[in-house]
Amino acid sequence: MNLRPAPPLQVSDWINTPQPLDIGDFRGRILVIEAFQMLCPGCVAHGLPQAQRIAQFFPAEQVAVIGLHTVFEHHEVQGTRAALEAFAHEYRLSFPLGIDRQDGRLPATMSAYQMQGTPTLIVVDRDGMRRYQKFGQADDLAVGSIIGTLLGEPRRASQSGAAAPAGCDSNGCPVPAAS
Amino acid sequence: MNLRPAPPLQVSDWINTPQPLDIGDFRGRILVIEAFQMLCPGCVAHGLPQAQRIAQFFPAEQVAVIGLHTVFEHHEVQGTRAALEAFAHEYRLSFPLGIDRQDGRLPATMSAYQMQGTPTLIVVDRDGMRRYQKFGQADDLAVGSIIGTLLGEPRRASQSGAAAPAGCDSNGCPVPAAS
Amino acid sequence: MNLRPAPPLQVSDWINTPQPLDIGDFRGRILVIEAFQMLCPGCVAHGLPQAQRIAQFFPAEQVAVIGLHTVFEHHEVQGTRAALEAFAHEYRLSFPLGIDRQDGRLPATMSAYQMQGTPTLIVVDRDGMRRYQKFGQADDLAVGSIIGTLLGEPRRASQSGAAAPAGCDSNGCPVPAAS
Amino acid sequence: MNLRPAPPLQVSDWINTPQPLDIGDFRGRILVIEAFQMLCPGCVAHGLPQAQRIAQFFPAEQVAVIGLHTVFEHHEVQGTRAALEAFAHEYRLSFPLGIDRQDGRLPATMSAYQMQGTPTLIVVDRDGMRRYQKFGQADDLAVGSIIGTLLGEPRRASQSGAAAPAGCDSNGCPVPAAS
Repeated sequence: MNLRPAPPLQVSDWINTPQPLDIGDFRGRILVIEAFQMLCPGCVAHGLPQAQRIAQFFPAEQVAVIGLHTVFEHHEVQGTRAALEAFAHEYRLSFPLGIDRQDGRLPATMSAYQMQGTPTLIVVDRDGMRRYQKFGQADDLAVGSIIGTLLGEPRRASQSGAAAPAGCDSNGCPVPAAS
Repeated sequence: MNLRPAPPLQVSDWINTPQPLDIGDFRGRILVIEAFQMLCPGCVAHGLPQAQRIAQFFPAEQVAVIGLHTVFEHHEVQGTRAALEAFAHEYRLSFPLGIDRQDGRLPATMSAYQMQGTPTLIVVDRDGMRRYQKFGQADDLAVGSIIGTLLGEPRRASQSGAAAPAGCDSNGCPVPAAS
Repeated sequence: MNLRPAPPLQVSDWINTPQPLDIGDFRGRILVIEAFQMLCPGCVAHGLPQAQRIAQFFPAEQVAVIGLHTVFEHHEVQGTRAALEAFAHEYRLSFPLGIDRQDGRLPATMSAYQMQGTPTLIVVDRDGMRRYQKFGQADDLAVGSIIGTLLGEPRRASQSGAAAPAGCDSNGCPVPAAS
Repeated sequence: MNLRPAPPLQVSDWINTPQPLDIGDFRGRILVIEAFQMLCPGCVAHGLPQAQRIAQFFPAEQVAVIGLHTVFEHHEVQGTRAALEAFAHEYRLSFPLGIDRQDGRLPATMSAYQMQGTPTLIVVDRDGMRRYQKFGQADDLAVGSIIGTLLGEPRRASQSGAAAPAGCDSNGCPVPAAS
């Protein structure tokens, strides 16, 4: 997978976090995004338990985990904040959960990431680059391996050094103010 | 467990069946009732898959399986017919599913059976007697054993013979109208 | 499966029992025989754990479990008593284990039961009749069901009454000596 | 874990390889060593299947997997080459398997690595340094992570550059050729 900035999160509402989050908020940490639907059997049986294992296994200051509720069917049942709250309560999901913004046939973030369905696991490196995306069942050996590889990488100089354009983030690079 | 007639099903709505069902409709067959809630992790991970295995393993003319949606929390999310339909669709539940009638703190059938929570597995014999009830995780060896025992039992004479009062059902036997 | 007497056990050596055992010793109890080889992956992963679950779940006075080491390959490795003892020790097998008598291409009991391989699960009823035999992976619902059915059966009158010829066993009933 | 050269393999016999192997033979590849005993339940249920998953998941030119039969009990049963061959055949183990040399109370390699028992998983980096050692059940996320980290590492300059003693490996350091 080429180095591509992870598209911004287009989220209409969040639970389990005091404030909205975006890719840039996780700079310096590896970010795991678990895209799911609460009525998706593969998400409940495999994807979300794996996300919980990741959150428990890796130190939170190194690897962050968030869920993204990408509802593209049964909106009337699973589409509300109350539905997600009830689900998160029963399944003991304690990491931040965003509700992907409804926007046409597919939710906005789901479209931007060109996800094929749920569950989808996405791994973003410390510099905001999307490095892994897997629809369906990803096995722990594969996910552990990609996270391990990213953990071993140094941060790129261009991200922290003076030579980088100010304010570059996953949304792009603004033109520097004239000096 | 003593031989006690299984209380009637108090159901406000059904899916996967063209007409309402009650205990008496299963006379001559063993009836397995899986009481569940769609947001109950133990129901999704264990109870409902077990009910599906039972439905697949035993001949339908010998053993019937139904689900009972005993919603006692998160009513706004899981309490509608649409919610249950979406859930049944995604989880490929094809046996009849009744929505336990809301009636005070606990649903009506749940109260009548004195269930302690979900999942609860109930086995009713060919004569409408409740013979097994288990809250939580019942293992297949236990459930197979109770069903096997009931399959081996002859039907009681009083249930099929001419001497039986007309209209006996699981609630008892009414005095026949004077002729 | 028709009612056929279970053939006698032809065992060259036993462990976990102070004395040799045969079908007749289990009269009045249901007998589960797990035929296995210690180097058979399906036996180690599925058959023997299931036998242990059966031994734990059902009361010992109702259901007895024994293992039968039916070695038909790798004799030099798994064919000794010492090999079986080491295996039983490591796998915590505490029920009686018989070593099927080597006798030509296949062990003697394995031949007499016409087993197709290992693991094979056999269930013998209280009267010494073979009622179930399954090569490969038997699921708990099936095994529970057959045991439950047998538990629910009354013992046949001929087996316990005074009229029965002395010395009846699974091989048949000899004519009593003239008095 | 500090960077320590992995001690040499002290193996009395090999199967699944045409010639003896040692740590130095895997230079440039990550080496996973699964130390096991064929009668160890945790090895059969967890350790060896995990080693097989690793061998299947990672490209062989990047990650090598070998087994080490560290027999420290039941020598008369599991201590022979024939026993290991029969076991490897039945469990479809196709990676190289070494028999740890018997040497006092514990086998020689097991002692040198100070293993606490079986199963033990060891990961050696491309430069022959032991980087991970885990007795008991290691989960796939952990093992995937350490392998991923090592895969992401560049080979150390000191291993190939002029400043390092030529050809140092876990077996020792040969005198450099005169210039």
